[in-house]
Amino acid sequence: MPLNIVSPTPPDIVIAQSVECRPITEIAAKLGLENDDYEPHGHQKAKVKLSVRDKLAHVPDGKYIVVAGITPTPLGEGKSTTTVGLCQAMGAHLGKRVVTCVRQPSQGPTFGIKGGAAGGGYSQVIPMEEFNLHMTGDIHAITAATNLLAAAIDVRIFHEATQSDDALFNRLCPPDRDGGRHFAPVMLRRLAKLGITKTDPNELTPEERGKFVRLDIDPDSITWRRVMDTNDRFLRGITIGQGPAEKGMTRQTGFDIAVASEIMAILAVTTSLRDMRERLGRIVVGSSRAGVPVTADDLGVGGALTVLMKDAIMPTLMQTLEQTPVLVHAGPFANIATGNSSIVADQIALKLAGPEGYVVTEAGFGSDIGAEKFCNIKCRYSGLSPDCMVIVATVRALKMHGGGPPVVAGKPLDHAYKTENLELVRAGCCNLARHIANAKKFGVPVVVAVNRFATDTDAELEVVRQEALAAGAEDAVVAQHHGLGGAGAVDLARAVIAACEKPASFGFLYPLDIPLKDKIESIARNIYGAGSVEYSPEAEAALEQYSRQGFDDLPVCMAKTQYSFSNDPAAKGAPSGFAFKVREVRVAAGAGWLIAVCGDMMMIPGLPTRPAFYEIDIDPDTGRVLGLS
Amino acid sequence: MPLNIVSPTPPDIVIAQSVECRPITEIAAKLGLENDDYEPHGHQKAKVKLSVRDKLAHVPDGKYIVVAGITPTPLGEGKSTTTVGLCQAMGAHLGKRVVTCVRQPSQGPTFGIKGGAAGGGYSQVIPMEEFNLHMTGDIHAITAATNLLAAAIDVRIFHEATQSDDALFNRLCPPDRDGGRHFAPVMLRRLAKLGITKTDPNELTPEERGKFVRLDIDPDSITWRRVMDTNDRFLRGITIGQGPAEKGMTRQTGFDIAVASEIMAILAVTTSLRDMRERLGRIVVGSSRAGVPVTADDLGVGGALTVLMKDAIMPTLMQTLEQTPVLVHAGPFANIATGNSSIVADQIALKLAGPEGYVVTEAGFGSDIGAEKFCNIKCRYSGLSPDCMVIVATVRALKMHGGGPPVVAGKPLDHAYKTENLELVRAGCCNLARHIANAKKFGVPVVVAVNRFATDTDAELEVVRQEALAAGAEDAVVAQHHGLGGAGAVDLARAVIAACEKPASFGFLYPLDIPLKDKIESIARNIYGAGSVEYSPEAEAALEQYSRQGFDDLPVCMAKTQYSFSNDPAAKGAPSGFAFKVREVRVAAGAGWLIAVCGDMMMIPGLPTRPAFYEIDIDPDTGRVLGLS
Repeated sequence: MPLNIVSPTPPDIVIAQSVECRPITEIAAKLGLENDDYEPHGHQKAKVKLSVRDKLAHVPDGKYIVVAGITPTPLGEGKSTTTVGLCQAMGAHLGKRVVTCVRQPSQGPTFGIKGGAAGGGYSQVIPMEEFNLHMTGDIHAITAATNLLAAAIDVRIFHEATQSDDALFNRLCPPDRDGGRHFAPVMLRRLAKLGITKTDPNELTPEERGKFVRLDIDPDSITWRRVMDTNDRFLRGITIGQGPAEKGMTRQTGFDIAVASEIMAILAVTTSLRDMRERLGRIVVGSSRAGVPVTADDLGVGGALTVLMKDAIMPTLMQTLEQTPVLVHAGPFANIATGNSSIVADQIALKLAGPEGYVVTEAGFGSDIGAEKFCNIKCRYSGLSPDCMVIVATVRALKMHGGGPPVVAGKPLDHAYKTENLELVRAGCCNLARHIANAKKFGVPVVVAVNRFATDTDAELEVVRQEALAAGAEDAVVAQHHGLGGAGAVDLARAVIAACEKPASFGFLYPLDIPLKDKIESIARNIYGAGSVEYSPEAEAALEQYSRQGFDDLPVCMAKTQYSFSNDPAAKGAPSGFAFKVREVRVAAGAGWLIAVCGDMMMIPGLPTRPAFYEIDIDPDTGRVLGLS
Repeated sequence: MPLNIVSPTPPDIVIAQSVECRPITEIAAKLGLENDDYEPHGHQKAKVKLSVRDKLAHVPDGKYIVVAGITPTPLGEGKSTTTVGLCQAMGAHLGKRVVTCVRQPSQGPTFGIKGGAAGGGYSQVIPMEEFNLHMTGDIHAITAATNLLAAAIDVRIFHEATQSDDALFNRLCPPDRDGGRHFAPVMLRRLAKLGITKTDPNELTPEERGKFVRLDIDPDSITWRRVMDTNDRFLRGITIGQGPAEKGMTRQTGFDIAVASEIMAILAVTTSLRDMRERLGRIVVGSSRAGVPVTADDLGVGGALTVLMKDAIMPTLMQTLEQTPVLVHAGPFANIATGNSSIVADQIALKLAGPEGYVVTEAGFGSDIGAEKFCNIKCRYSGLSPDCMVIVATVRALKMHGGGPPVVAGKPLDHAYKTENLELVRAGCCNLARHIANAKKFGVPVVVAVNRFATDTDAELEVVRQEALAAGAEDAVVAQHHGLGGAGAVDLARAVIAACEKPASFGFLYPLDIPLKDKIESIARNIYGAGSVEYSPEAEAALEQYSRQGFDDLPVCMAKTQYSFSNDPAAKGAPSGFAFKVREVRVAAGAGWLIAVCGDMMMIPGLPTRPAFYEIDIDPDTGRVLGLS
């Protein structure tokens, strides 16, 4: 069913609702999925079971393509749209077997400023309402799990503060009807951590009982925050425990947006239900007063978290506007987490694509953010390696990097961005060149996709192409998938297919067995172009603490601005030699990395005076969603 | 497929997982549902479209049976179990067409003390894990909608405090590309409320602009609270806005459990997508400083709330252990809201059951709580009327009402409850008699279901039967559906079928056009047995304010303890002549009632020292949920 292209391009929701969505059973059948391989969620979405991957273990993987971008403007450069358009071209125009892997967007921004994230124009995942709203409930499950763990922390502190060791023990291991006591299985994990091998509660010495029942959490050490998938800025900093029954045990804390939860990060890197159970149990929420990390399993809640997440571990099958298959799964923020969709989605997709097929997965922001974490973290945990990296560039962003005036969301674009200016474009290509060089440091062939806007001139586009080739890209292709769908990205698709045939020699940037600071410096110097790294005293102390606690063999997830290679969002182009600052270091023991916070990270966005929700409504006669953008 | 009954009765989850769940498509087909009539959610759940009701408008309704209970102990008397068992008897043993309508349980208590709510023993809704956890995401949608509205309130106050009228206007109605401005459709609702009929923003006078852009919400008047489906007691009382960017605009507020949200109440009483859109828009969140109610539509968010709730409006089809159909929908708390499942579920069920069929719906707690609200509120909004009321009684609870020692959750039962004591039982039947009399005040025939426990003696059960008949019940039948499934409730089912043939003369207890205090007194005197009603000064003031604001034509939803007819949970039996106290009055303008708060209501439960989550885990090999109770 070819797209019925209209010009000028109508609003995204108009296009999305104008195309008839095929039954998801049909999309699944084309992929070779059988009825038992998935669970339908409505007629247009289905959750794909992980058993599919194992069933197809004998099938060689498809080619693995990761889409990243240059350093973006706040308006975004169309990376998701390019990901979708490239797949529409491969699948609907070149007859290739292709699966798209994208992140589930947070629902918060959908009602705030940003709008949806299903692609755009004639390159979209549909139904876009489903994609942008609840989808199949994965983020809701993350919210529920994150908040259950938070509730478990505060209530445990409360109960420990108000009860004796004996009372706690009697409640944690109450006598059975026959007077015996038993440990819940999860308690055996805590006992093992304490070095206690007894399995009968009655055999614990008073001292062992005390150790067992008292987590003795230091309230000031708690790093676990509650979450909500809503842009609610008034929850950034709150005081809890002010109800009369909580006896004055107040504590300052706050909410993050749901996708910032470590549980979202875990969903993105887990490889099986068993692995997820272990990761959730290992989550460190803070320390005891003696400095021992306190985990979800210490709180007895690792199993329950897994039960809450058991359906979320299945990726959601949807479709593009040209009926090619899409797996939507996980959505960790790129600036604070890995910014990549899930390992299991990619693994399933590679099996479904098969040796003649292609999987296109997206990494958030630039090579310094999503792609770096894709290579150093995601691929390390998945065992996969990419055959090609696509870097999406726009003339608009390159002009900004070349010295153009600031680009601000919600404000009109400066004249410089609407008329030909070859000098700005050429000067800005230093940013593109750095991203190409970064990709090549991982040993991956690069194709540059120039996402063409209406105001771009042929001469400007040619500058980008030439500079990209000069910087070492295998190819650089202008694409018009936003206005034309897959037909606008056929040349790009051909270039990507060709690049996948080139030899790749993928490797990580750093090994895990070097000191934490060396890992950070490796990223900062090689990828960001920093001359040195400076640590705040808090960061120094945390690095020292986490090394002592045995977390020094983890990779490092950098939390930095997406708007510059450096700490300074205003430093455009390709800055180098700067002192890169690390403000804070945290552990995400469940996800499996340390987080180096390198700037002020917005953990829960706010709503503007006129949020996007003003235009959103429903047609009560048809049930059709209106005004979603 | 007959049940394979084992004695003693295994844990609920063991029974639930031992029965093979039929594909939901099969259950749907038996009901006459076509593929387009529902949306599958996995292979064992489906959301049924409201269009089914309209398509079957020509089919006469089935018989309508509501299940209530006597005043319960904290352990519960098996009302849900009886509801399910009765339907298994009707459908699987007597060959009747029957649909069960039950509430979706809150996920919070599942991990806390209470455990699940899918029935029990051999009378359960399955899969019980699905029923007790996310189900099809309705409560998550309610959480998201409730919190979006909350975020909209605080951020609006913030933006109004930091911007001039002109700045607000320019942001709310920004200039289009051609310099014109437009109102979002939802803004026309606010303009209509202000008596402004202009549709071009540029034509507003400065005074009209000021009125339009300034809701001028009085922070102290805000009644809208955030929600979470987690037992997190530390969120009962909190201070928000303490992040540095919120400029010191802190406010004291708190979270309720999600099912306590007015949006849950709206889901329970709405009759269509259009009706839900209007109800959500009408929600009153507080007042302006001038005393004008501020609504969700004033905040511009009524449409977005509806979009978040568009799938939640569809009831979820599941099945019992004996493969009879169940519609699960909505779950407002009975002590603070209506405590009944949804109107649309009942309406759909009555059409699917048809003139020869039966619909059994459950009302929370006793005739003074769920059943009173079923009759006075739910039936008023649905236009339906019950053919029979089942009142579930237990010997245990009656002994308590007869003067037995207190029954406390988590503590061993007193000897009195385990051995025959006819005097206690007979004395306690005053409570049962009051509930029977209450039902008859609504003109509904009553059948008493005595839910038999292992320790009950035949003589005790016979006392209950005799007292029930003496109090005016059509019949009173001992049932053993917990241990025997539908086979244990066949006699009960026959009695209910017979009672449905009796003439019913259903009527409301009070008309809507009387003063609010008269409505409250009607309920307190006729149903609770109060001698008088006393109002706190706050309640007096609120009643006066809401009357002035035009809410005096609404019914009243009483928020009172379920443990006594009076305000005092310790006053067992059938107290009378007491002064009934109303502490606080609130409006639920979207749901369509005033709430009279008559005691300390727990709006978000806490977690005990050893929450239920300690036993909950997953078998990583099979994905099977363990330890859910």
